[in-house]
Amino acid sequence: MQGFAVRADVEEVERFLVRHAAPLAAEEVDLLACAGRVLARDVRSEVDVPGFARSAMDGYAVRGEDTFGASDYDPVPLVLVGESMPGRPFAGELGPGQAVRIMTGAPLPAGGDAVVMAEVAREQDGSVEVHAAVPPHKHVGARGEDLRRGEIMLRVGRRLRPQDAGLLASMGVARLDCVRRPRVRFVVTGDELLPAGSAPEGFRIVDSNSVTLRALVARDGGEVLPFELLPDREERIRTALAMPGADVLLVSGGSSVGREDFAPHLVAELGSLDFHGVAMRPSSPAGVGRIGGALVFLLPGNPVSCLCAYEFFAGPVIRILGGRSRAWPHRRVRLPLGRKISSAIGRVDYVRVAIEDARVIPIATTGASILSSTVRAAGCVIVPRGLEGMPEGAEVEVLLYDEDGEVLD
Amino acid sequence: MQGFAVRADVEEVERFLVRHAAPLAAEEVDLLACAGRVLARDVRSEVDVPGFARSAMDGYAVRGEDTFGASDYDPVPLVLVGESMPGRPFAGELGPGQAVRIMTGAPLPAGGDAVVMAEVAREQDGSVEVHAAVPPHKHVGARGEDLRRGEIMLRVGRRLRPQDAGLLASMGVARLDCVRRPRVRFVVTGDELLPAGSAPEGFRIVDSNSVTLRALVARDGGEVLPFELLPDREERIRTALAMPGADVLLVSGGSSVGREDFAPHLVAELGSLDFHGVAMRPSSPAGVGRIGGALVFLLPGNPVSCLCAYEFFAGPVIRILGGRSRAWPHRRVRLPLGRKISSAIGRVDYVRVAIEDARVIPIATTGASILSSTVRAAGCVIVPRGLEGMPEGAEVEVLLYDEDGEVLD
Repeated sequence: MQGFAVRADVEEVERFLVRHAAPLAAEEVDLLACAGRVLARDVRSEVDVPGFARSAMDGYAVRGEDTFGASDYDPVPLVLVGESMPGRPFAGELGPGQAVRIMTGAPLPAGGDAVVMAEVAREQDGSVEVHAAVPPHKHVGARGEDLRRGEIMLRVGRRLRPQDAGLLASMGVARLDCVRRPRVRFVVTGDELLPAGSAPEGFRIVDSNSVTLRALVARDGGEVLPFELLPDREERIRTALAMPGADVLLVSGGSSVGREDFAPHLVAELGSLDFHGVAMRPSSPAGVGRIGGALVFLLPGNPVSCLCAYEFFAGPVIRILGGRSRAWPHRRVRLPLGRKISSAIGRVDYVRVAIEDARVIPIATTGASILSSTVRAAGCVIVPRGLEGMPEGAEVEVLLYDEDGEVLD
Repeated sequence: MQGFAVRADVEEVERFLVRHAAPLAAEEVDLLACAGRVLARDVRSEVDVPGFARSAMDGYAVRGEDTFGASDYDPVPLVLVGESMPGRPFAGELGPGQAVRIMTGAPLPAGGDAVVMAEVAREQDGSVEVHAAVPPHKHVGARGEDLRRGEIMLRVGRRLRPQDAGLLASMGVARLDCVRRPRVRFVVTGDELLPAGSAPEGFRIVDSNSVTLRALVARDGGEVLPFELLPDREERIRTALAMPGADVLLVSGGSSVGREDFAPHLVAELGSLDFHGVAMRPSSPAGVGRIGGALVFLLPGNPVSCLCAYEFFAGPVIRILGGRSRAWPHRRVRLPLGRKISSAIGRVDYVRVAIEDARVIPIATTGASILSSTVRAAGCVIVPRGLEGMPEGAEVEVLLYDEDGEVLD
């Protein structure tokens, strides 16, 4: 049992990760599953949307010039020759002095160039009295007004919004190339661990880290591969680390410098252990390495350290691999500190905080084993390396744990 | 074809919906699927977590009093009698003058009351030299330090965070009662519509609204029931509206006051049509009603209107039913307007905007049929009913369409 000789700076590890992570290759995704995914290529529309001129109102398709001079005092009578409904256009051509009843979205009949709103027309016995003039093009949506054939509206790297998926549907897209979701393998070790869903028993505790991590990986767009809890046996851990097929390995437990902490030297043996020990609190035993094409994260077994090391290092990488922003996805608020935060120069601190009366209160416990502190907390404050703390009253940025917004009034 | 006689205020519709929507009943949810779900009952821990006193450090379990006076100059020798590993505790009792090698998280042996960190001890030939005194309880995590038996840490209404799921795992929870996800049925009508994934063809267009809505409902925690596109035939629409099993009906198309807009009177016939026509732009033909226990939303067929009416009325209800906050889930920024927005007193406007050089630019098009405007836009600005617009330079709140955060530096 020996301590860490040197601890890397958080920023140094972050820079390393940004250099070694890039969006994964494309995979085809079904249109109905594409919202939230990231485009791997520009999408060019192969059609005009809409593919025809259409009415923007319920009313009557006309030749605009026929209505010039029309008013309440001097309405213009037109002959009603048919109707155009969405999907069931008027079959003929609209001639001078004629009108076609038309619904919003219905194709404008050939020969027509404007639509008179129903509100300014009066239909009776096969004719329509128009009470207001409409210039040509009035209330008509041109072919391609939403999207022109050949136009690129959605570009590579775009995280698709709900309405983007709708627009893709309207272009006739059925499948599209998105950045593949990162595949994440958990390597969770510990003789003391029982699988999630078990009751704790004697001196055995339940694996909670994989449960927290599973939800974090889902939040960040990764896909968790099947896994099983491993005992603290070197061979079993080596085999799990060497198994191909993952883009990211999250190693929880057995990652420090104790006698049964096999993971660090196994990562070094199978690939490279690029960092082990980081100047931060909690999570100082965290590590980063590479095996084959996969990035490996050594996450301390203490649940708060595990969460914190995930947020600093693994989360950003999973998001980058999936084509998203590496930024922490939390909502933020800026509020004054209600009590000072102590830290140390040279170390980054991840401080759980409550928010009381619009002031930020650091939660007293520093124990990395106290997962309930992150349940009680409203969020966390990051104390940067250059500060030895933050005084009471200082405005700080809180990264909120909850995803919900405030009420919009 | 006639216009709307009276249009309701947006706030009136919102108040109605808040009165008629409440969280759904509980359903059992698997622990691994609970993150993001909302608790339907308080969860009381049935166990202490941890269930035993444990070491917070790698080092040596001792009786604290044995180390009093120990220093580098005058180390105290103790007899090493065994080791305690996580899940593999020391079987005996630690007596006076004895030490037990111990790992972080391992059970404290009976008789021990403190842990000496490895860094201030030297082990050799079956004995341990202690170089610093430790008071009793030092580096020991008490039984129940994370969570006490009987304690309620997670309360009804809580939207479960990743770490909440972890904490539930550590308590031994396998399944838990969460608010049921609202079941949402789409009633999408239009003779002109082709199913999503088809190419548009002649005068037929592709149903894009159900694709956008599907993604919005997923965002808001609802579950979309299977559905098929319906022709503009009254009987078919009546049957779809009357089908039981949904908490929310989203009716897209055929919802205005035109000749083939069957939905409004069918909702009135089958239940109640509480609102039809809202003083807003776009989406003024939107409507709200009830059939059986379900809330029904008439969403205009124009894709921007459909999106807007969903965000104002259906989205908040789906979130309330699922136990979430009714607030719009968008991230927000406050920035000055780079160009004025015109509106009208008495009407709420949903204005798509771009953000250029940290200024908010309303997107010129007002066409509710132009879905691409919501793809080009960075977000939307809501102009409240009491304003006739917003002047250039005014600071406005933008609800951002993108979910990603900014980079944390």
